[in-house]
Amino acid sequence: MQRYFVKSEQIKGNTVSIHGQDYHHIKNVMRMKTGDNVYICDQVENVYLASIIEIAAEEIILKIIETIVYQSELKCSVAIALGLTRREKQEEVLRRITELGADGFLTVSMERSIVKAKGNAEKIIERQRSIAKEAAEQSQRRRIPRIYGNLSFDEFLKFSDDFDLTLFAYEEAGKSGDASFKSIIKSFQGKSVLVLVGPEGGISPSEAEKLLAKGFSAVGLGPRILRCETAPLYIMSAFSYEWEL
Amino acid sequence: MQRYFVKSEQIKGNTVSIHGQDYHHIKNVMRMKTGDNVYICDQVENVYLASIIEIAAEEIILKIIETIVYQSELKCSVAIALGLTRREKQEEVLRRITELGADGFLTVSMERSIVKAKGNAEKIIERQRSIAKEAAEQSQRRRIPRIYGNLSFDEFLKFSDDFDLTLFAYEEAGKSGDASFKSIIKSFQGKSVLVLVGPEGGISPSEAEKLLAKGFSAVGLGPRILRCETAPLYIMSAFSYEWEL
Repeated sequence: MQRYFVKSEQIKGNTVSIHGQDYHHIKNVMRMKTGDNVYICDQVENVYLASIIEIAAEEIILKIIETIVYQSELKCSVAIALGLTRREKQEEVLRRITELGADGFLTVSMERSIVKAKGNAEKIIERQRSIAKEAAEQSQRRRIPRIYGNLSFDEFLKFSDDFDLTLFAYEEAGKSGDASFKSIIKSFQGKSVLVLVGPEGGISPSEAEKLLAKGFSAVGLGPRILRCETAPLYIMSAFSYEWEL
Repeated sequence: MQRYFVKSEQIKGNTVSIHGQDYHHIKNVMRMKTGDNVYICDQVENVYLASIIEIAAEEIILKIIETIVYQSELKCSVAIALGLTRREKQEEVLRRITELGADGFLTVSMERSIVKAKGNAEKIIERQRSIAKEAAEQSQRRRIPRIYGNLSFDEFLKFSDDFDLTLFAYEEAGKSGDASFKSIIKSFQGKSVLVLVGPEGGISPSEAEKLLAKGFSAVGLGPRILRCETAPLYIMSAFSYEWEL
């Protein structure tokens, strides 16, 4: 069933009001009618089954039928940081890690990034938010991942202070048959994880040193070389496999 | 370091001869010179470090320096079958599951496939082989996944006879919090696995019945709804996480 994220102020008692893009989607894309049901998610992880009772000129009114009790979020909040890379790759990663349960996304300007941060930062964040919202709806999430924009490497190091566990994917750790990623996941008792994946060219030795000095752990993702857009999917799949299956 | 798959007949004693596309890649794309080193993989999982000793008009001659002992393959052979879907999606899945260690790929015409099998089957297989070869080289594999083409659903059921373990990803199994995928992987002692992921519209109830009757197990991939192009990556990541980390 279709699912829409709304702001708290759109829900009043048992009534939900929808306008704007979601109005257009329900009316013109899905061609729903009065009596059709959808899921409504507020911003604080509640999910409701709601029925359309009126399709007006610029507003759709729904009535909440029941509250859905269904856990679709990982037990810990996982944010993925990706070395700044081409926009299409960023967006593909964002879309897929949202499906796989990530709770945050940012990019980091790194030594080996082949692109520079450019364009209107606010506009890029806005676009990423809309990608995350759409993917969260399709994959039946309760939460939309937070979008943090692009940080410099030093800003990123500071940013990492807010997380219980900080990791970076490091090819050399993978090749050495290091099992630390698994053992770290298995023993982790905290609430929030931040994982950095380098850009196409990888993480430079001096960046790796700074990360280790900051308290990050280097983890391997198996013996094969993964592209920077595949590694985040491996990481998110591993969290789900370990915690949810 | 760059890696090239060659046929056995291209290796004679300690000498390797390269022509055609790989010749072009080494000479014009990578702009390598005499004395540069590459990895050479034969079709039987040997990997050699080799040095370029001559770049002739249509042939590059290399000398094998040493044999590389490095395990980059999963301990079991995993083939992914994808419900027939648009070509770009097929190719993206093939590329990524190759990075993640898959050993075989095929598509299956299913009830809810929104596209039909069309075009020159041999040509499509040829194109998929070249995608698999390139992805295997980039991810430092020893093997190139086998490409089986597109099968009808009945052909696919017969095809599955060759595998020790046969699974299909089923949304309802995931939502019910079923842990069978993990317990199946953990207890599996065989050598070959086949996993079917449905097309966009999913696997129909009647197809699911036939799969179960044939001995397939329905497995869930967590509580979120994954797209058909994301589920195969989750599956391959889970095998790697369980077996390799």
